[in-house]
Amino acid sequence: MAVGASLGLSDVFTSSFDELDTLPEGFLEGKTILFQGDSITDAGRKRDVEGANLPTALGYGYAGYLGTFLMGKYPFSQFQIFNRGVSGHKVFQLADRWEEDCISLQPDIVSILIGVNDYWHTFTHGYEGTVETFENDLRTLLHITQKALPSVKFILGEPFFLPKGYAIPEQWDADIFKQYQEVVRVTAIDFDSIFIPYQSVFDKALKLARTEHWCPDGVHPSPGGNYLMAKAWLKGFGRV
Amino acid sequence: MAVGASLGLSDVFTSSFDELDTLPEGFLEGKTILFQGDSITDAGRKRDVEGANLPTALGYGYAGYLGTFLMGKYPFSQFQIFNRGVSGHKVFQLADRWEEDCISLQPDIVSILIGVNDYWHTFTHGYEGTVETFENDLRTLLHITQKALPSVKFILGEPFFLPKGYAIPEQWDADIFKQYQEVVRVTAIDFDSIFIPYQSVFDKALKLARTEHWCPDGVHPSPGGNYLMAKAWLKGFGRV
Repeated sequence: MAVGASLGLSDVFTSSFDELDTLPEGFLEGKTILFQGDSITDAGRKRDVEGANLPTALGYGYAGYLGTFLMGKYPFSQFQIFNRGVSGHKVFQLADRWEEDCISLQPDIVSILIGVNDYWHTFTHGYEGTVETFENDLRTLLHITQKALPSVKFILGEPFFLPKGYAIPEQWDADIFKQYQEVVRVTAIDFDSIFIPYQSVFDKALKLARTEHWCPDGVHPSPGGNYLMAKAWLKGFGRV
Repeated sequence: MAVGASLGLSDVFTSSFDELDTLPEGFLEGKTILFQGDSITDAGRKRDVEGANLPTALGYGYAGYLGTFLMGKYPFSQFQIFNRGVSGHKVFQLADRWEEDCISLQPDIVSILIGVNDYWHTFTHGYEGTVETFENDLRTLLHITQKALPSVKFILGEPFFLPKGYAIPEQWDADIFKQYQEVVRVTAIDFDSIFIPYQSVFDKALKLARTEHWCPDGVHPSPGGNYLMAKAWLKGFGRV
């Protein structure tokens, strides 16, 4: 038996997710949900498959799991679900493709998970953006979206990392990265949005199993990590 | 609101699946689970990724959903999960690659969903096998597996189709296909195996939403259909 066997998985979340993932029948009926972000969202989706609700278009990751769950458990809701995450992207790169990959889809709910590359790539790709760049770019992106889609709702995911992951460089400073996480948290409040606290979900999950189980390289979740993300997302989705 | 709104999704299954998918902590700890079958199982997995528990190796379908769920919800079980489904395969083609794609992985649980092509390809590919061919090939495959892996447990999925799917040919005879389904059901009994009644799951789900929602072409499930399959599979898995 692994570490922390006395802890139940429900302790990973602030309250029982099994209860909270049961939404009312016909919840948000007919709404279009768009997943946006970097590789964690992209997760190997077939980028040439553009339609809603297709397995290959939703990817192998948490967005694919959520699309499967939402279509299966809530058939009366008839959601239209898209994934337009692109590997390696930072927030300014979302902006570059926002008209095509967000506005033109006319989403009702835009779920964005971005930010890990905005910090990580300062080590690995010579990226020179700072936390201020990140904040300005994120706020601008949300303003543009609200202008084009006045009734849009945002679900903003906290960027996260697992310190023992094999791809986390030595120079990674958790305190600096915390500033990026804080930007997303505060921006979510300012835009009356849902915030998904992925970092604390993974932190708590490490009491149940090791980094290798949830997210081997420290950035890209395993299937188990994708499950944690999906469950945390659903808790937020229930409050949209 | 769609057809059958008075019916809850739990009515799709013989009893509440939310209860039944809660397995005891550490259930089947350390076991290796292998998903085998045709395109429904393959579901776009990256065939050059051979390791266990990797999102791209598990595919976009029900096996990917189940791998995600099992790793996430039961971290103490530390399952090793493989998918070796291959698009287009009939049961004799599983036999052709069984040493590499089953025996060598030393699985404790082998989940097989096969049979739809054994009938479908008699229309579309000039295949000349009959229901007797199917039964002989399936029984031989299971015997070979038991001989190599004496304590193996089988989970056998019922092949299924949705009559209004756009890829179902006019000549498709539900009564003849029922014989293939019956072969799997009876073989499961004879091999002391778990049988997953996918056809009745989809039949009941059609009271909640149309073919287009669950399985547009009649053979390959949507994400929603993959969810139904995963839930039905979990009910069986809890009895392994």
